[in-house]
Amino acid sequence: MENYGVGKVIDSTHPEFKSGDLVWGMSGWEEYTLVYQPESLIKINHTELPLSYYTGVLGMTGLTAYAGVMEVGRPKRGDFVFVSAASGAVGQVAGQLAKIAGCYVVGSAGSDEKVDLLKTKFGFDDAFNYKSETDFAAALKRCLPDGIDIYFDNVGGATLDAALLHMRHGGRVVVCGMISQYNLEEPDGLRNMLCIIPKAVRVEGFNVAGYFHMYSRFEEEMARYIKEGKIAVVEDVVEGIESAPVALVGLFSGRNLGKQLVALARE
Amino acid sequence: MENYGVGKVIDSTHPEFKSGDLVWGMSGWEEYTLVYQPESLIKINHTELPLSYYTGVLGMTGLTAYAGVMEVGRPKRGDFVFVSAASGAVGQVAGQLAKIAGCYVVGSAGSDEKVDLLKTKFGFDDAFNYKSETDFAAALKRCLPDGIDIYFDNVGGATLDAALLHMRHGGRVVVCGMISQYNLEEPDGLRNMLCIIPKAVRVEGFNVAGYFHMYSRFEEEMARYIKEGKIAVVEDVVEGIESAPVALVGLFSGRNLGKQLVALARE
Repeated sequence: MENYGVGKVIDSTHPEFKSGDLVWGMSGWEEYTLVYQPESLIKINHTELPLSYYTGVLGMTGLTAYAGVMEVGRPKRGDFVFVSAASGAVGQVAGQLAKIAGCYVVGSAGSDEKVDLLKTKFGFDDAFNYKSETDFAAALKRCLPDGIDIYFDNVGGATLDAALLHMRHGGRVVVCGMISQYNLEEPDGLRNMLCIIPKAVRVEGFNVAGYFHMYSRFEEEMARYIKEGKIAVVEDVVEGIESAPVALVGLFSGRNLGKQLVALARE
Repeated sequence: MENYGVGKVIDSTHPEFKSGDLVWGMSGWEEYTLVYQPESLIKINHTELPLSYYTGVLGMTGLTAYAGVMEVGRPKRGDFVFVSAASGAVGQVAGQLAKIAGCYVVGSAGSDEKVDLLKTKFGFDDAFNYKSETDFAAALKRCLPDGIDIYFDNVGGATLDAALLHMRHGGRVVVCGMISQYNLEEPDGLRNMLCIIPKAVRVEGFNVAGYFHMYSRFEEEMARYIKEGKIAVVEDVVEGIESAPVALVGLFSGRNLGKQLVALARE
């Protein structure tokens, strides 16, 4: 099993990597790992920032949020943006990028603690706990009475269906993930796609694989935002490989607060 | 009740329209009609072509097909294109425009006569009668074994759901209409939207209202295609206002063959 991680090069016969280099990319869940495709690794330039950021805000999840918001969502100043699973690794960055782009940003999350984090730490204009709302559509209308220009979807299912009805003309649904659907025997049926015709709504699926060509630009821009305090980061770190299974399963019940990391070794 | 029609100006106090001008646009279902918003009318430039074309291929439905294929679908040479309700007013033009753009085009329709029309008259590369297929997904796979780059959707529902599963990476679903859904108490649930994430598929609703700014360019281009024989036209004309109700209802059962017109008067 492999996943995104950070590490230090111990030894290398590849001309672009030398002993001591810090890198991020796909690696094993282990303290020492043998990398057969070093081309898939990316060198870490901003070593003045926490290394763990390269597993999240400066790595794959940050690039995912950046590509989704900037390239797929294409925000305009004043746009109304809704982000689901907003305190998660991708959602927290997506919402903050939309704020930087001058949008009004609302997030949903699954606990009052997460909602509080969205409003106080990540600068969302508004947020709600979907688990304590009896009517999700009503919550959307309360927080975004004029509708949604960009919906950054991390959950799919009933949330996506409700958001579709509430999209504004020319709106964009950035379909990044559908965490509510992954473990179902049969996915929920979406009933509101019809409304994308009169409202000329674009629903676009994407994944980070298509955006690695813009990594350098992204890394510099994101590192600057972090240093300027425009992007805040919250990570949920568990210690040791023995904690990994519980942490992994917890993603599906929303146990984690921010990017879920497993620390195997530290500098 | 108003609809798109063609007519001759009898009298006008509007500076841009004079007696004798031929125009198309929204008008009453009547032999003589009083137009309160002449700004909504468009003058007919190509009077050498059949006037009825301005209710279809040179009018609203033609512009719909043009905008959907060229602006939303953005075809590339060699793309695999699937059009549902392909012998209908919009479908027949959409498929032929995709052919002009160098695509491989497959259509579905609801009778063998329509399928024959698609292959012989409209130049589709392949076509099938969805009513005689036991497995729609299998028919798609047979006709488009390498998948779909552009699906021009006129029907929605189960057809859209099957097409979603068969999209290629980076594919585009041009959502123009969902005729299968308009008369349902509750729309069918779409279960395959999940696959737009790994395949980075764009599903975009649109309507012609957003594209009238390109009408002049469209009119010239389409008139040229018609004269060059690159776009064929099939119309289904019923005579007299007394035939209108049956013709209208017939749209939902697929009775019509090509653009459904009601002739109230002739030049």
